[in-house]
Amino acid sequence: MNSSDKIAQLVCNTHYDDLPEEIILKVKRAIIDTIGVTLVGSQDPIGHKMRTFVKGESLSPYSSVIGGGFKTSLSAATLANGTMAHILDYDDSGANTQGHPSAPILPVLLSLAEHYHIGGKKIIESYVVGVELFSCLSKAMPMLHMRGWHPTKVLGTLAATVSAAKILDLDYSQVKMAVGIAGSQASGLTMNFGTMTKALHVGNAAQSAITSVMLAKSGFTSSDNIFKNDGGFLEVYSDREEEDLIRNLELWGKPYSIIQPGISVKRYPSCALTHRAIDGVIDMKNSHEFTYQDIGELECRTSPRALHVLKYTKPQTILEAKFSMQYVLSAAVIFGKVGLSEFTEEKLNNSEVIRLMEKVKVRVHNDWEEGDNLREDEVVITLYSGQTIKRKIKFAKGSALSPMSLEDLIDKYVDCASCYLNTDEINSSLELLLDFEKLDSINRLMSIISKTA
Amino acid sequence: MNSSDKIAQLVCNTHYDDLPEEIILKVKRAIIDTIGVTLVGSQDPIGHKMRTFVKGESLSPYSSVIGGGFKTSLSAATLANGTMAHILDYDDSGANTQGHPSAPILPVLLSLAEHYHIGGKKIIESYVVGVELFSCLSKAMPMLHMRGWHPTKVLGTLAATVSAAKILDLDYSQVKMAVGIAGSQASGLTMNFGTMTKALHVGNAAQSAITSVMLAKSGFTSSDNIFKNDGGFLEVYSDREEEDLIRNLELWGKPYSIIQPGISVKRYPSCALTHRAIDGVIDMKNSHEFTYQDIGELECRTSPRALHVLKYTKPQTILEAKFSMQYVLSAAVIFGKVGLSEFTEEKLNNSEVIRLMEKVKVRVHNDWEEGDNLREDEVVITLYSGQTIKRKIKFAKGSALSPMSLEDLIDKYVDCASCYLNTDEINSSLELLLDFEKLDSINRLMSIISKTA
Repeated sequence: MNSSDKIAQLVCNTHYDDLPEEIILKVKRAIIDTIGVTLVGSQDPIGHKMRTFVKGESLSPYSSVIGGGFKTSLSAATLANGTMAHILDYDDSGANTQGHPSAPILPVLLSLAEHYHIGGKKIIESYVVGVELFSCLSKAMPMLHMRGWHPTKVLGTLAATVSAAKILDLDYSQVKMAVGIAGSQASGLTMNFGTMTKALHVGNAAQSAITSVMLAKSGFTSSDNIFKNDGGFLEVYSDREEEDLIRNLELWGKPYSIIQPGISVKRYPSCALTHRAIDGVIDMKNSHEFTYQDIGELECRTSPRALHVLKYTKPQTILEAKFSMQYVLSAAVIFGKVGLSEFTEEKLNNSEVIRLMEKVKVRVHNDWEEGDNLREDEVVITLYSGQTIKRKIKFAKGSALSPMSLEDLIDKYVDCASCYLNTDEINSSLELLLDFEKLDSINRLMSIISKTA
Repeated sequence: MNSSDKIAQLVCNTHYDDLPEEIILKVKRAIIDTIGVTLVGSQDPIGHKMRTFVKGESLSPYSSVIGGGFKTSLSAATLANGTMAHILDYDDSGANTQGHPSAPILPVLLSLAEHYHIGGKKIIESYVVGVELFSCLSKAMPMLHMRGWHPTKVLGTLAATVSAAKILDLDYSQVKMAVGIAGSQASGLTMNFGTMTKALHVGNAAQSAITSVMLAKSGFTSSDNIFKNDGGFLEVYSDREEEDLIRNLELWGKPYSIIQPGISVKRYPSCALTHRAIDGVIDMKNSHEFTYQDIGELECRTSPRALHVLKYTKPQTILEAKFSMQYVLSAAVIFGKVGLSEFTEEKLNNSEVIRLMEKVKVRVHNDWEEGDNLREDEVVITLYSGQTIKRKIKFAKGSALSPMSLEDLIDKYVDCASCYLNTDEINSSLELLLDFEKLDSINRLMSIISKTA
């Protein structure tokens, strides 16, 4: 049995009723969080550009554009919703994936569910298979960032595709074909990090999933195992062998990666690789008396991957600032927090921030080995007084191993959603979201969050 | 000036009135040929699947689906027309590209021109910049096939994007952004050769160009030089350096690759890498008395690339047969020709063909070096009688260096178009195509070839 067969089998054999109880709540939390950040994304100027594009693209009344007030074609709605989910880089990560699991997967499921009147349980079941494949691929193809690939697009395309295949109940061989079709649409360069195109990667991944499943459903063919050696997906993107994937597929659902290690929800709207250091700086700020002027150096010791990804030492735009350890740590010191309101032109051009950024040094941990991402980050502030303050942070707050309370998660949703919805709409949508598995149809939810009544 | 700047400058500075006279006819020939093969593709069962998909996708009346009888959104029409152009693998190649220049580029231009009422001269001008970039990238990033990449998608995405940028008159910095956005959408695995997904690669490339230019036009940002070293396009896809591209961009238009080496038009609806050997076998068949039963061995000595790409020694489907030297050479011996009617289930399952395929041996030329594609192919038939017949073929008939007459090209168009158009429609469309540069609008042409009056 090759790896495409194995994937098709695993996808077809996953059923809601067999899922561990625990997973339902975790998926619901991810859905609430993803819809919240998509709503903020939709009201951002980048979201506005995406909405204008897809509105001009298609007149079809099939699926709702979140935060948009209109419906369009399945593909176009999915492209927009996927992109908007990632615009602020405030969406979830983790679950053993090298990127963001929910942003490429959930928009595809919402569009298809709305169009075909599918309910909450099926969405949850379909969501699970996507994240699980994303996790298996991530483990089999490590360090994609270092090769210039954005894993959320490269692997998220396949993950979103199996989720889409599941929600449409594609049969065994159609799932194989859909995965093969998706394999030829995986792309996305880290070179575009810090630009609007990073968010588009996610929308593209989601849109590719629609193309892949709709064509596979109609009998479109692809390689019967896109993962085989000598030119297959693993080799081309990461110089790995099919055996690496097969080994990881054996561990599918044992336990599900949504449960262990779990999904990390962001407290800060910046690259996840900055979160531990931000936690450390905010903690130091809260427990010591110092101002930015007292600081001689602010050192952050982190992973080689973080050093590679966080390439903007002097960010010029808000998107670059999200990938700048220099900016986020300076903002943490000067504003005492790193929230949506810290990513503005005004704060980026704040002269105190600019001065402090010069003093932030990002270094690889002396004894950190390549690929080692589970070590703690360390932040060290050396004051002109000679005093040194340090923090080591292993798990960022909100991350899977230090999770947010449901109350905090709801607070984040309300904060995000209020940019587009009024209090009644926020409450109605939350009521539906908290009972997501009981929904026979998500169309009312979609019409609230998209104002497409 | 980095390579993105250089590309933007070259694209912005290309104008129809400055193009050499010779190029106009060559582009018109390419347009005639591409529309012809797209018409055949549209009536193929694969074309039917694509048309059904895009018809379900969008109700918008913006751009025509060739051979389809309906209009849809810009993206969806472009996706369908791009895919259909390549379904039969009967579309052009060459022009210093590692793949098929017209199939990803022309459909984008036709959709945009129809939607925005743009005429023939502008289409020709825009077509030229796409092929030229495709050529520069192909020379800077050699042997993509060997790395598992389908160049028509990987490079065609960028080529189609600059053509689209040109036809919409994007400004200098928008062109740069469009190219950067496109760089994150380049993908396509050779693993999918011999399946329907190979044609979809071309449709995807074309659709990505629409996304890239429409977003760039609205102010969407990407890397300001997607080609730079340390993680850029050249390095990620082919381990090359930006310098390799800059060197080739210096040669842009000196001469234009459409003129020298020129575009190759296919006489056979199979992979271009089979054409020289087919010519040789047909020539031997026409000049010697032998039947398939007389043959002890049919050896083909070819390039390492051909050996890699033509991987189906025992093809099971019609698409696999297009990538099988064993099949096409056996068909050439048994049927005396390799035309559209040789790619049927019946002929693929012909017992004589199956027996002869066993005797076809494909080998790399003894002294052929990697990357050497300009050497001749050699076919050697050894008869049971002991007689040996050989042919060396340097340029396939129809290829740029052994071009078809305009009459033959028109014959191919008529043969292709007759699958969907009646004689009057064929004549009317040809009349418009032969005067393409004089058309103020292509909408009448589009309505004829798509029956969307």
